[in-house]
Amino acid sequence: MTQYPSILLENAVNQFASLPGIGRKTALRLVLNLLRRDNNEVNIFAQSLTNLKSQICYCKVCHNISDTQVCQICSSNRRNRQIVCVVENIQDVMSIERTAQYNGLYHVLGGIISPIDGIGPKDLELDSLVERIVPEEIQEVILALPTTVEGDTTNFYIYKRLQPFNVKVTQLARGVAVGNELEYTDDVTLGRSILNRTLFQSDN
Amino acid sequence: MTQYPSILLENAVNQFASLPGIGRKTALRLVLNLLRRDNNEVNIFAQSLTNLKSQICYCKVCHNISDTQVCQICSSNRRNRQIVCVVENIQDVMSIERTAQYNGLYHVLGGIISPIDGIGPKDLELDSLVERIVPEEIQEVILALPTTVEGDTTNFYIYKRLQPFNVKVTQLARGVAVGNELEYTDDVTLGRSILNRTLFQSDN
Repeated sequence: MTQYPSILLENAVNQFASLPGIGRKTALRLVLNLLRRDNNEVNIFAQSLTNLKSQICYCKVCHNISDTQVCQICSSNRRNRQIVCVVENIQDVMSIERTAQYNGLYHVLGGIISPIDGIGPKDLELDSLVERIVPEEIQEVILALPTTVEGDTTNFYIYKRLQPFNVKVTQLARGVAVGNELEYTDDVTLGRSILNRTLFQSDN
Repeated sequence: MTQYPSILLENAVNQFASLPGIGRKTALRLVLNLLRRDNNEVNIFAQSLTNLKSQICYCKVCHNISDTQVCQICSSNRRNRQIVCVVENIQDVMSIERTAQYNGLYHVLGGIISPIDGIGPKDLELDSLVERIVPEEIQEVILALPTTVEGDTTNFYIYKRLQPFNVKVTQLARGVAVGNELEYTDDVTLGRSILNRTLFQSDN
């Protein structure tokens, strides 16, 4: 016999174990948990996955995940339509929305330029960003990409592409994180935070 | 808007987050991984869950998970049918099978007696174990339950129930684990391993 007493069990474990960060032992634990539930509950679980995959849309304006052709943010009247924040993926949109500090629109690239992984500008939603500037009368583009080499490369690429347009290009403030001890802040961040020091504000 | 840009996404994340040990951040990561796959792959994933739940059997002899009415172990001619190993759940069957040191049959209780959790003898496959002894001419019952208070209670209960029958009742050897340093072995285990010391065998 194989390692598993049932081929049905093995199939389900294989599926869960194909997910990132889920090993075979964890997969078995998850499958056995589902097995203890009602038929109905398991069907709802499975249905939620097939529904997601078959019915999900990507907003045709900002390329964020959406239930509709144009997402809630892009179709909202309450957002500032002159500012676009450029992010790598939808998790980043969710992170920025959670801060409740931003009221503009987004543009989800779907990745960042990474020659090592074979990801070039053509694989990302970069052209569609540039094409938004004039018709949507965008005044400011905020670059909110990861502070890595790939992120910096992509930032620079976008900056170059946007130069012909009359649009302000900004980036997220970089410096010591709120709540961090200086002792444990890395040297590059600390060094730059001294060079780029700002005027003291009592609400920071 | 809610935390998620899509209700479909939120539903799928909620389902994954209902699994043990999966938080909302991990659930989102898993769902986004599925979202990047083909439609077909996601359908296979979902189908494996509904198939598992709707088609799985429990062996009517040993109560292990099975694709058939009687499991592969119980229906095998190569197994020693005079020995039954009593375990808590199907993971334990798989663990013992992996050792390749056991050739008898199993009996899966589906839990252990635990008054705190409201689990009594009637909630477990205990009667069905006792009913197997005479018709199957079982000579030995190996108690392979957890070495906890609940495990010991269940062991003692089974021992009492089997006393009227002419059957040998054994338990797993307890002692210092192979590869363990004595320094890090707990006191109870180490103390018992001295009291229950065995004759030296050169292959141990």
